[in-house]
Amino acid sequence: MAFIQSLPLSSMNTLAKSGGAWLISPSLATALRRMSVAGFATSSSSASSPNWEGGVSMVQGASRGIGLEFVRQLLEKNNEGYVVATCRNPKEATSLSDLKNRFSERLFIQKLDVTDEATIEESAESVRERYGSLNLLINATGILSIPGVLQPETTLNKVEKSSLMLAYEVNAVGPILVMKHMWPLLKAGGGSGTDREVAVVANLSARVGSIGDNRLGGWHSYRASKTALNQLTKNVSVELGRRKDPVVCILLHPGTVDTDLSRPFQRNVPEGKLFTREYSVQKLLHIINNAKKQDNGKFFAWDGQEIPW
Amino acid sequence: MAFIQSLPLSSMNTLAKSGGAWLISPSLATALRRMSVAGFATSSSSASSPNWEGGVSMVQGASRGIGLEFVRQLLEKNNEGYVVATCRNPKEATSLSDLKNRFSERLFIQKLDVTDEATIEESAESVRERYGSLNLLINATGILSIPGVLQPETTLNKVEKSSLMLAYEVNAVGPILVMKHMWPLLKAGGGSGTDREVAVVANLSARVGSIGDNRLGGWHSYRASKTALNQLTKNVSVELGRRKDPVVCILLHPGTVDTDLSRPFQRNVPEGKLFTREYSVQKLLHIINNAKKQDNGKFFAWDGQEIPW
Ligand SMILES: NC(=O)c1ccc[n+]([C@@H]2O[C@H](COP(=O)([O-])OP(=O)(O)OC[C@H]3O[C@@H](n4cnc5c(N)ncnc54)[C@H](OP(=O)(O)O)[C@@H]3O)[C@@H](O)[C@H]2O)c1
Ligand SMILES: NC(=O)c1ccc[n+]([C@@H]2O[C@H](COP(=O)([O-])OP(=O)(O)OC[C@H]3O[C@@H](n4cnc5c(N)ncnc54)[C@H](OP(=O)(O)O)[C@@H]3O)[C@@H](O)[C@H]2O)c1
Repeated sequence: MAFIQSLPLSSMNTLAKSGGAWLISPSLATALRRMSVAGFATSSSSASSPNWEGGVSMVQGASRGIGLEFVRQLLEKNNEGYVVATCRNPKEATSLSDLKNRFSERLFIQKLDVTDEATIEESAESVRERYGSLNLLINATGILSIPGVLQPETTLNKVEKSSLMLAYEVNAVGPILVMKHMWPLLKAGGGSGTDREVAVVANLSARVGSIGDNRLGGWHSYRASKTALNQLTKNVSVELGRRKDPVVCILLHPGTVDTDLSRPFQRNVPEGKLFTREYSVQKLLHIINNAKKQDNGKFFAWDGQEIPW
Repeated sequence: MAFIQSLPLSSMNTLAKSGGAWLISPSLATALRRMSVAGFATSSSSASSPNWEGGVSMVQGASRGIGLEFVRQLLEKNNEGYVVATCRNPKEATSLSDLKNRFSERLFIQKLDVTDEATIEESAESVRERYGSLNLLINATGILSIPGVLQPETTLNKVEKSSLMLAYEVNAVGPILVMKHMWPLLKAGGGSGTDREVAVVANLSARVGSIGDNRLGGWHSYRASKTALNQLTKNVSVELGRRKDPVVCILLHPGTVDTDLSRPFQRNVPEGKLFTREYSVQKLLHIINNAKKQDNGKFFAWDGQEIPW
């Protein structure tokens, strides 16, 4: 039992005693096998620095769009590495289920709604039990328009309190609460199992969140929420830097990407400027994989150019 | 009755018919006298461009602190001009009542709670009836700490959703809703009656709302709300500019000023860097009085220096 005692106590939840013999659930069995492959859990002291080959990545907001494409590329473009894909309704996330069928051991789907902090805490707990650490957190969730609920504003006259509050809750408050609860896991993970020296938090922002670059106006709720996300991410990066945690935070603008979010506004996109999800995510993963300590707190476009605040 | 018909229709609310004769309420009598002094209402066509000598200024968040000092200086340092001072609880705003005793004709106190949009609409309606226009709107309301409710965060671990949402509602959403409802009045007013070519909206922001200048971290809720206020104000400035409205919006950092808001944090302020309200507001009024079209959308410190986003 020494081996099992070196696991986080909560892993015991997935063990069941049956007629005097300990049964190990399939998911724990997988976890134990991977952990020993990765040189983890061979001594009880290494419980605080787990090392999963290829690393453990969480993609938050993974049911569709850019988040889903991150999951796909993290699984398909690498031979190793684990992905925790979170979404509001796992049962309806059919594209994630398809990936789960292909990558059953490397993909773990978890329910998480950023407006419900309990689901964020449960997700953190579930990652802690399963992997003990994270090396990458991508916050991809974002809302711009929801028919009948949230309409991007074309003028000050159309600004509504409910829209401002909702966009802020999902686009700014959501990601920072996720960061708060995943922070211990990211500190535990750092860059271990990956080619990086650090764990990375990549928050999907948008160029329209830039104040300095704002020449068009409009979209008040969305813009302000992304600007606030930029400040919150920068703010956390300052604390991470001061604490010398092995974690950096960056902000990413994916370009204008062909997803449900951009669909209602694609008419005005100049020829060649509407990216496929494949292209954008490939570019963003390049930035993430090369992130260094000195990138902490920066805001990058898909092409690696820094965007002004 | 031609004279009365040239007033906004809703002014008729303050007229009462009694035994066949029209009675004019005291407040309307004052208004009519001032309007004719100011050359207004002598022809019916001028109803759309009222001209109050010295202008009409609204100070939103005027019960105490910097807002109250704005009201005081606008009244004491000028011989003319009208001030609408708004606050959540007029009955408890004793300093405003004292000023009302001294400047009964030039000061009008109005209830307004930025978290209750109906009170914002009622305030706009009341200004419309009374003056028909505004030449200056100062949004001074702001919250940083409220014992037991809102505590400025020292670390990511202490970030709470309720604090983030509340600071956003009061510090960012509040001022933009006030701008939305006062916009027609500001357009009607422009610079008329003042030495300026334009009406001014001055939103009290804070240097800690700057992302580029963030080197300390912490205070997540307050910082993010002020950053969002900066974006929202910039956003509105773009629309005002495009429409060629005679209105500019600016953002102001008052310095660290001796008020209830800064009191819990004054220990760390270097000698000579804690301003009196008198000094800060004198500096800010200088910026406001000199605001030109090219200042639209800018963020100024008390000394006139621009602050990076
Ligand atoms: N597409 C672009 O052109 C573009 C440009 C700039 C920035 N961005 C940013 O990139 C990110 C991804 O955008 P996208 O284009 O992929 O959008 P999308 O296709 O509309 O996907 C949005 C994702 O957010 C999830 N989501 C919404 N509310 C949520 C909540 N309360 N909790 C958890 N998840 C929630 C959705 O889940 P459900 O399926 O459950 O609704 C969905 O997975 C966003 O942050 C967006 O602002 C996109
Ligand atoms: N003092 C500084 O060092 C400093 C530095 C940078 C920026 N600022 C900014 O300057 C502005 C003025 O600050 P201050 O120092 O004068 O603060 P203060 O003395 O604490 O006064 C705050 C004012 O906001 C009002 N207020 C609070 N919640 C409100 C609501 N829901 N609706 C309407 N009014 C509300 C308060 O009214 P009640 O009396 O009803 O509570 C009070 O009049 C704020 O925006 C602040 O963020 C101040």
